[in-house]
Amino acid sequence: MRGYLVRPVGRVVSPLIDPATAPRQGHEGAPEAWLEFNPDVRDAVRDLKVGDRIIVLTWLHLARRDVLRTYPRDLTHAPHVGVFSLRSPNRPNPIGLHPVEILAKSGLRVKVNNLEAVNGTPIIDIKPVI
Amino acid sequence: MRGYLVRPVGRVVSPLIDPATAPRQGHEGAPEAWLEFNPDVRDAVRDLKVGDRIIVLTWLHLARRDVLRTYPRDLTHAPHVGVFSLRSPNRPNPIGLHPVEILAKSGLRVKVNNLEAVNGTPIIDIKPVI
Repeated sequence: MRGYLVRPVGRVVSPLIDPATAPRQGHEGAPEAWLEFNPDVRDAVRDLKVGDRIIVLTWLHLARRDVLRTYPRDLTHAPHVGVFSLRSPNRPNPIGLHPVEILAKSGLRVKVNNLEAVNGTPIIDIKPVI
Repeated sequence: MRGYLVRPVGRVVSPLIDPATAPRQGHEGAPEAWLEFNPDVRDAVRDLKVGDRIIVLTWLHLARRDVLRTYPRDLTHAPHVGVFSLRSPNRPNPIGLHPVEILAKSGLRVKVNNLEAVNGTPIIDIKPVI
């Protein structure tokens, strides 16, 4: 068994373009962004509503998957640390977790705050915060 | 672009066998379990330590991926709700998020508390709680 196929359910539409200058975490000045869902998941989206606190799961498609150790944050001269102890996007399965709040909704488009994922990032799941 | 290949980095070893009787959330009486990592991610695992609070990401391999609406929890007669508003394992990409604490560690084996995933569930990522 080699793996499982993750199928994107939508995309991030954001003013953030360059991963090098994007905030590392949503609460560090990340902008509002839209989640644009595919029509085939309309039934999964329909009960999301303004004010909901959700976790957006993304596939960090620009990340490297062959990195197992790296430096923490911008401490480029620090000893390398295993990526399971870091939030670095570079990791074997580059899944992003983004806690956000829904600010607006229009059909298949959902506006959220504090999203540090760059424009075009695939969305793979949405879960309510519990 | 059809999707991305998620490659398991390890497996859950747990006394939980039957998903039908497993707790729905870790804090609802889920047992201790071991995370057994593959040798090829040894460098990613090595800085995990006892006392760390982590989020285990799993691929809920027994879940259904074609369910977009279902009933909340055990309210089998309640109106169906879109799965992006639920923690149901049944969803387009059946990824589980499990906040746990590390209780013990021995090489590629890490013992955690409160894990509701059943024995054999593939592990796909580990992130520190921030």
